[in-house]
Amino acid sequence: MIRFENDYTEGAHQRILERLLETNEEQTPGYGTDEHCENARTYIRKACGADQADVHFLVGGTQTNTTVIASILRPHQGAITATTGHIAVHETGAIEATGHKVLTLPSDDGKIQASQIKEMYEAHWNDPTHEHMVQPGLVYISHPTENGTTYRKAELEAISSVCREYGLPLFLDGARLGYGLASKDSDLTLEDIAKLCDVFYIGGTKVGALFGEAVVITNEAMKKDFRYMIKQRGGLLAKGRLLGIQFEALFEDGLYFDISRQAVELAIKIRDAFVEKGFPLRYDSTTNQQFPILPDDVIRELGKSYSFSLWEKIDETHSAVRFCTSWATKPEQVEALIEEIRSLRT
Amino acid sequence: MIRFENDYTEGAHQRILERLLETNEEQTPGYGTDEHCENARTYIRKACGADQADVHFLVGGTQTNTTVIASILRPHQGAITATTGHIAVHETGAIEATGHKVLTLPSDDGKIQASQIKEMYEAHWNDPTHEHMVQPGLVYISHPTENGTTYRKAELEAISSVCREYGLPLFLDGARLGYGLASKDSDLTLEDIAKLCDVFYIGGTKVGALFGEAVVITNEAMKKDFRYMIKQRGGLLAKGRLLGIQFEALFEDGLYFDISRQAVELAIKIRDAFVEKGFPLRYDSTTNQQFPILPDDVIRELGKSYSFSLWEKIDETHSAVRFCTSWATKPEQVEALIEEIRSLRT
Amino acid sequence: MIRFENDYTEGAHQRILERLLETNEEQTPGYGTDEHCENARTYIRKACGADQADVHFLVGGTQTNTTVIASILRPHQGAITATTGHIAVHETGAIEATGHKVLTLPSDDGKIQASQIKEMYEAHWNDPTHEHMVQPGLVYISHPTENGTTYRKAELEAISSVCREYGLPLFLDGARLGYGLASKDSDLTLEDIAKLCDVFYIGGTKVGALFGEAVVITNEAMKKDFRYMIKQRGGLLAKGRLLGIQFEALFEDGLYFDISRQAVELAIKIRDAFVEKGFPLRYDSTTNQQFPILPDDVIRELGKSYSFSLWEKIDETHSAVRFCTSWATKPEQVEALIEEIRSLRT
Amino acid sequence: MIRFENDYTEGAHQRILERLLETNEEQTPGYGTDEHCENARTYIRKACGADQADVHFLVGGTQTNTTVIASILRPHQGAITATTGHIAVHETGAIEATGHKVLTLPSDDGKIQASQIKEMYEAHWNDPTHEHMVQPGLVYISHPTENGTTYRKAELEAISSVCREYGLPLFLDGARLGYGLASKDSDLTLEDIAKLCDVFYIGGTKVGALFGEAVVITNEAMKKDFRYMIKQRGGLLAKGRLLGIQFEALFEDGLYFDISRQAVELAIKIRDAFVEKGFPLRYDSTTNQQFPILPDDVIRELGKSYSFSLWEKIDETHSAVRFCTSWATKPEQVEALIEEIRSLRT
Repeated sequence: MIRFENDYTEGAHQRILERLLETNEEQTPGYGTDEHCENARTYIRKACGADQADVHFLVGGTQTNTTVIASILRPHQGAITATTGHIAVHETGAIEATGHKVLTLPSDDGKIQASQIKEMYEAHWNDPTHEHMVQPGLVYISHPTENGTTYRKAELEAISSVCREYGLPLFLDGARLGYGLASKDSDLTLEDIAKLCDVFYIGGTKVGALFGEAVVITNEAMKKDFRYMIKQRGGLLAKGRLLGIQFEALFEDGLYFDISRQAVELAIKIRDAFVEKGFPLRYDSTTNQQFPILPDDVIRELGKSYSFSLWEKIDETHSAVRFCTSWATKPEQVEALIEEIRSLRT
Repeated sequence: MIRFENDYTEGAHQRILERLLETNEEQTPGYGTDEHCENARTYIRKACGADQADVHFLVGGTQTNTTVIASILRPHQGAITATTGHIAVHETGAIEATGHKVLTLPSDDGKIQASQIKEMYEAHWNDPTHEHMVQPGLVYISHPTENGTTYRKAELEAISSVCREYGLPLFLDGARLGYGLASKDSDLTLEDIAKLCDVFYIGGTKVGALFGEAVVITNEAMKKDFRYMIKQRGGLLAKGRLLGIQFEALFEDGLYFDISRQAVELAIKIRDAFVEKGFPLRYDSTTNQQFPILPDDVIRELGKSYSFSLWEKIDETHSAVRFCTSWATKPEQVEALIEEIRSLRT
Repeated sequence: MIRFENDYTEGAHQRILERLLETNEEQTPGYGTDEHCENARTYIRKACGADQADVHFLVGGTQTNTTVIASILRPHQGAITATTGHIAVHETGAIEATGHKVLTLPSDDGKIQASQIKEMYEAHWNDPTHEHMVQPGLVYISHPTENGTTYRKAELEAISSVCREYGLPLFLDGARLGYGLASKDSDLTLEDIAKLCDVFYIGGTKVGALFGEAVVITNEAMKKDFRYMIKQRGGLLAKGRLLGIQFEALFEDGLYFDISRQAVELAIKIRDAFVEKGFPLRYDSTTNQQFPILPDDVIRELGKSYSFSLWEKIDETHSAVRFCTSWATKPEQVEALIEEIRSLRT
Repeated sequence: MIRFENDYTEGAHQRILERLLETNEEQTPGYGTDEHCENARTYIRKACGADQADVHFLVGGTQTNTTVIASILRPHQGAITATTGHIAVHETGAIEATGHKVLTLPSDDGKIQASQIKEMYEAHWNDPTHEHMVQPGLVYISHPTENGTTYRKAELEAISSVCREYGLPLFLDGARLGYGLASKDSDLTLEDIAKLCDVFYIGGTKVGALFGEAVVITNEAMKKDFRYMIKQRGGLLAKGRLLGIQFEALFEDGLYFDISRQAVELAIKIRDAFVEKGFPLRYDSTTNQQFPILPDDVIRELGKSYSFSLWEKIDETHSAVRFCTSWATKPEQVEALIEEIRSLRT
């Protein structure tokens, strides 16, 4: 059984493990105040073209989203997101558990547009009873989205511009950021993101690390006391060095980008194989997640040797499924899958 | 200007004011432990046919909804409601502020059906990743709804039956309960509600009182420590007697039902006048709120002498509006309005 | 049985009831947007010498404390108060329920001093692990305190000065503010309080009203969106006019101050009677609450005709008790009590 | 510079690193559902003599305390702990951030006694205004405590007995549990703890692991839906296997106990050296943390080659300091320190 069901099935990239071994005996101060964290911060600031950014390391995505969002909002404010946004659906109400409503905008492919934000914001303030409703307090987007789709630079500029006009902080969830940056379809760079967002995170868990997410705060007003927030939400790792060491390895010479590129190339091969075979795609993803719509018998057939996720029932005899590649996917695994796809009787 | 814009524009029914005057010099213990509260509890238990029910008095609706819901749910659970439910829209995220997501079911007229609850509950538990999602923890309905519609007994029985099968407590928001019970279209009695729900409240603010809502808890498991909850949410009125005195007056000899009936009769006259004139209704309300769809020029014309609420834009030249009657509405006010409706040039 | 056990045993001052009657039929918009509220705000601003202050009306004290404090603090901050502070002891954890720790300073008589605040603040920031601890975020004091004691102007100036130096908002709980202002021992005026605090409230529930507390916000930064906060915490009374009407009556021509003065004069008579008889006082209160330390047999004897509160066991045979006067206390009730005190065999 | 300042200065025990390497390429399902987690659970249940216990793995201590406590308490309840308890002091108000007050009992050495719990519980329920106060909802203790002290079996039996009599769940924080079990002074076994507590955790972060805490739930009522809680609080590690692999290594053949024993033996050597030299101890610790009281010049002298923590100022010229050993401390490091202690001129 070869697993394509998600992008966190293996441990970590070899280079990260080596570094953990090499540094194991070092004695360092705790909670992210060590030299490895400092180095990693420097590398990340450089990669972002953001000399003044604050960089913090957290363990996982839900923790990161909760900590960032709760640190920004006032009690009566909510976070705007797509109906499909991770915070709206798959975090067991973690945002609500900090007291804030998630305000959803309709989306079919995981993306939202500047015009939707504008409309929601204006509808709120134009309503004479707005004090009886949750006030939009920030905008949360994912890049790439939970559906593999990406924002283009012009789209993010439009969103950023609306947000700044209205004083809405813009937070970008980059759980799979490497794969988004490696997309041939997106012209967005890390520097663009650092300029256009107020805060975002660079996902490590799904892109080569054992675990870890690097939060980058570029908006001065949001930097204050953020470490208190991390500690309060249970995210201040005692051996913070583990995060520093991993992000050092990922960012000192571009490993993060290299492994992301490779994973996306393999994903596009899978996509192409399904498309060539005539299967439609549920979303137009150019990143490491691919969502072909397959007949049930094909799903059963492929399921004998490959694991993947059932995503959505399309009709009586078809479902969308998800195949993920990752930094750990081997070319020969993808070749075998493609071979099998090509040989399907349809 | 005669106001039909809502059902809380005046003070209180004359009999309530008299009682407040008569009892003003009495010295009573605080926080709802006085004799008036005790009497009112007895009257309410009797009206509900629920000898064992716990009855608590709170000041307002949002406070009541928040206190009841937060007292029932565990941290990972949410409250199921219609998209139009008061807790979903008009309480500034008060439920989320206690840590809980509001889980919405689509509804056009404010009601939800047993089958929708069943479907949401089963979808949750059938999802293999359900632990990543908010668990349905209780069902919240309004009777009458925010749209003036009501549940029939069979509908509430079906909802109650699904709830009990799944262990979902059923909470009925009765902010306008008197008007619902007075509806000719609903065969639901107060005794039915007490039997079919686990907890509900009888609204006073909109039905004759200066303020006040009576929470009735029939489910033994939910009675424990409820007074702590009221105090924590800021709802334990020091001079609790004020609530007791008002509900005594409303329930000792049926005043609550009498004034509700009169308000609904007047509302139906308004409804009939609009219908006779050929105006469609946005919702089929048989309670004290009426929602005719009117051309904009008619809205302007009526607005010269009557205040009412703009509810929803229907198309370029029409909107739904809301006319409310209440215990305080005078027959001659309604007569004047009907006269005006009849004389509209259309 | 004549009740001195607290200051909320009766209804409201006669003038307030008259106003409620007179205005009962008026049709007003809801939620504090009516003319009575507007008038009351004007009177209160004038009494405070604070033309630019925002004034909001809430129903009760716990609700007010919770709403104000939660609106000011960021998630990692706590409220500094005396160990005896109402928010620390008698609000069922309402502050914690909004996510914030109450940080207590030792106090025997309910007051805290500027030096204590300074010390706590500096201890926090000097601790290298301060990010692992709750950050002091505001200062809460009561005037008069829960023990009947009051701040002098110089004390409040010192506290205010420390708070402003450190950027700690200062919030004064005035549940019994009238009685504090009427104290012969305190030289603090309402204008002083408005100048020295960032936000405070003028208590109505215990000083002549049926219920109601007027929040006065003088710090510009805290005014923003406060009505959302009130709504979210369940404190936005539908018939907000009830609060406006009551505070109009209390502040249009000084009624609030007159009834407070009378209550304090009566309390001092009770105090003097106990002292003359040789009983010590638990706190040096010059307001409407008096705390004599009495032998148990005297407590039993007095308890036959007068109700009062057991406050604290002092030793095997003595306890401190509390006698409260209020706007509703009649001179003849106090005369009878004093007669009884004087005739005690000791 | 040799570091004794805390017990999380190095990475992980060699055997854990080896396992991470060996298993790195394995493809496993996420979120703790893999085989390694299952094995680790089996080992831990066996070590606890608790076949029916639920075992969950979380990343860190604050996260674990917050998740467990929030999952147990109802909104109006608080957690009883020593004033020195980690949740009371060093978690940035994480418990309050979930809505619950921390109720503190005085303690000089980190321990609390059954009689104190009894007294607090009874004082609450005997107070006629108890509904205005936070209700004691569970008891939290640490073993060993933050001060290195331990409970004896008879003490924990007494606490457990009071807790069960009153229906108060008992939660034991075992961040350094290995070191407590290795104490010669404590006769408590892991099996005792499993029998006497309702829930506890076995700390990995400070005892050989890179990170990780194993929560053991023995009380049936607390097992329900615990994974939702972990997810909501951001603690459900995507690559849950990392936790499983580490606890497998620690518990398959007693490594956890072996390394704890060695660390404690080294700590006792340090203790003995200080005592022989005539320095008093701040706490009578028989675990891996030692707290000698030293003159300031000795502190300066030792500080040249060894890092340790300043704990508490004792008088003008003395302070208590903390020396920690851990699974990573080498005998030769301790020998060097002892040599230096012995050669101090005093």
